Amino acid sequence: MQDRQIRVIGIGTGDPEHLTLQAVRALADVDAVFVLDKRAETADLVEIRRRICAAHIRKPHRVVTVEDPPRERRPADYGRTVEAWHAARAERLEAAFAAHLGAGEVGAILAWGDPALYDSVLRILDHILARGRVPFRRLVVPGLSSVQVLAARHGVPLNGIGGSVLITTGRRLAAGWPAEAESVVVMLDGDPTFAHLDPDLTIYWGAYLGSPDEILVSGRLSDAGDEIRRVRAEARARHGWIMDIYLLRRDRAATDSAGAAG
Amino acid sequence: MQDRQIRVIGIGTGDPEHLTLQAVRALADVDAVFVLDKRAETADLVEIRRRICAAHIRKPHRVVTVEDPPRERRPADYGRTVEAWHAARAERLEAAFAAHLGAGEVGAILAWGDPALYDSVLRILDHILARGRVPFRRLVVPGLSSVQVLAARHGVPLNGIGGSVLITTGRRLAAGWPAEAESVVVMLDGDPTFAHLDPDLTIYWGAYLGSPDEILVSGRLSDAGDEIRRVRAEARARHGWIMDIYLLRRDRAATDSAGAAG
Repeated sequence: MQDRQIRVIGIGTGDPEHLTLQAVRALADVDAVFVLDKRAETADLVEIRRRICAAHIRKPHRVVTVEDPPRERRPADYGRTVEAWHAARAERLEAAFAAHLGAGEVGAILAWGDPALYDSVLRILDHILARGRVPFRRLVVPGLSSVQVLAARHGVPLNGIGGSVLITTGRRLAAGWPAEAESVVVMLDGDPTFAHLDPDLTIYWGAYLGSPDEILVSGRLSDAGDEIRRVRAEARARHGWIMDIYLLRRDRAATDSAGAAG
Repeated sequence: MQDRQIRVIGIGTGDPEHLTLQAVRALADVDAVFVLDKRAETADLVEIRRRICAAHIRKPHRVVTVEDPPRERRPADYGRTVEAWHAARAERLEAAFAAHLGAGEVGAILAWGDPALYDSVLRILDHILARGRVPFRRLVVPGLSSVQVLAARHGVPLNGIGGSVLITTGRRLAAGWPAEAESVVVMLDGDPTFAHLDPDLTIYWGAYLGSPDEILVSGRLSDAGDEIRRVRAEARARHGWIMDIYLLRRDRAATDSAGAAG
């Protein structure tokens, strides 16, 4: 029997031009698009995805929505609960592959940003492959992450000269500034406070990156922090949702290492 | 006088299909391509860049090579020396803009990977803008970084569930495993040793990512480390150069935070 193939395709952050030529090619001959976690997507995002499929999938294709299982919102054991939830999602997706993707056919899962960064699809596919009931080949097509789009829109490097970059979550940053960090990118921060951070940090904040609604604010944290909180609250109220990210940089003279190269 | 525009365009890691649709559009009407740091590029890389320009620049255009000033290889004060060297590069690039880019024209600088990650172009352009002698508008077009291509080719996420990702250099990793790190991506490591690292780490290594010569090795560091050093030495001898990157992950149960979302 000919293998099914599942392509996990990073589509960037909302600008249809974020797609790579590889992503365009990977979409062209797709038989079925599997949409996970639909409730987490707003009408705006669903519409962007629909347009990407319409523009690039060059054959008649099915769109299969896989509803998420219910999720415990305040579990006692976070890690184990998330894992059990991933397993439940995997079973549903596996059933969808079995029902809606024939032998030799190609299925696609579109991932916002890059599939390797704060996205659960790769882990869910690993679950399904480990169960071994619905075999498939897997192709991962990288996409522009919001981290890069943020830096590009502000026109700034992520790292200091020879320095490192930490990509982390709002939840983790709430525990304090990471030891020895110079450049910190914060994702998934539902309510940025900044109050516990060094006011001399420089912040580069962006929301709805790549979309016509994009907002950028930057400056010294002591000045820009309050403005960002205000702009963010207004935008979230206006749109009904917000997707944002920020870079915090300790801008001091680099004294220890080299720059350049790739 | 109409402004000059300089576009810094990320072109990915060597696969011509890494270009985004935005990069393709940004290249189309370029009048001059400025090539920096040519000596650091091998014939293979020069050829890939030439093909990208030939395929996507849709008008007659100039290619202007800006030779690097000599660089002190073992300076006493690394940071200050790098800064002085950037200033010297800025002066040369500024002179090239003045000589080879007319009013209203568009210049492009192609960056391997993503312009925001371990690339000096944005800093050099800041120098020129700060000097104020040759004004221009600047557009940054993000590109796939080797970090993402590495993860995609291995089919693995960069972060653990709700975890963070540190992107750092070989020079810094040599000082020891970063405090509290779980996922560490190491770039610019001229001679990976691994000897000082926990043998239970999982490593995902890749070289010449996205090119026909791509090599991938992964496994427990205690097993894969020696193989990577051997494969790497062989490949470098065969090609005369190597461009590689690796991800180190401490694979333990996540117990503290959430997954999902973009």
